[in-house]
Amino acid sequence: MRFAVHVEVSPLEGIADPEGETIERALPALGFEGVRHVRLGKVVRFEMDADDAERAEERAVEMCRRLLANPVIEQADVSVAALGDRRQGSDLGL
Amino acid sequence: MRFAVHVEVSPLEGIADPEGETIERALPALGFEGVRHVRLGKVVRFEMDADDAERAEERAVEMCRRLLANPVIEQADVSVAALGDRRQGSDLGL
Repeated sequence: MRFAVHVEVSPLEGIADPEGETIERALPALGFEGVRHVRLGKVVRFEMDADDAERAEERAVEMCRRLLANPVIEQADVSVAALGDRRQGSDLGL
Repeated sequence: MRFAVHVEVSPLEGIADPEGETIERALPALGFEGVRHVRLGKVVRFEMDADDAERAEERAVEMCRRLLANPVIEQADVSVAALGDRRQGSDLGL
């Protein structure tokens, strides 16, 4: 079976996030007040063959450990969906 | 009201993604075969005050247009949740 995998890698709580801080400082000058706790991460999407969803998730977590994330300073959230499914979230076509 | 906003910015279909290609080329050497269509994006999470969810989403989309994304080469997906809610996805505590 083929799976769509979504990995979100973000800085651990307490780890400095200078890019997020820069965005937070830039927003008031653009008229966006009241925005706080900006954190920047990365997202990796890919397709993968696996026997079932559990095995796909295991492999994706192992990929995070070995390549995609640095567990000392980052956390990784993995979501797996059989291809054909759609992940939740509104696509605003920006 | 206070909202948690999640913005995912990713390269438009057809736009080169050299970081994603590099990850895809690196994976077989680490023993991960059968991984295709790797695309790398960024995710911005923040908290924002707004009157309601619709207004929060409007402001977040406007923030994407003006700062977070480059609509010529990137698309942005915005999700908004009233604080207290939890977004879907399994946290694997990596």
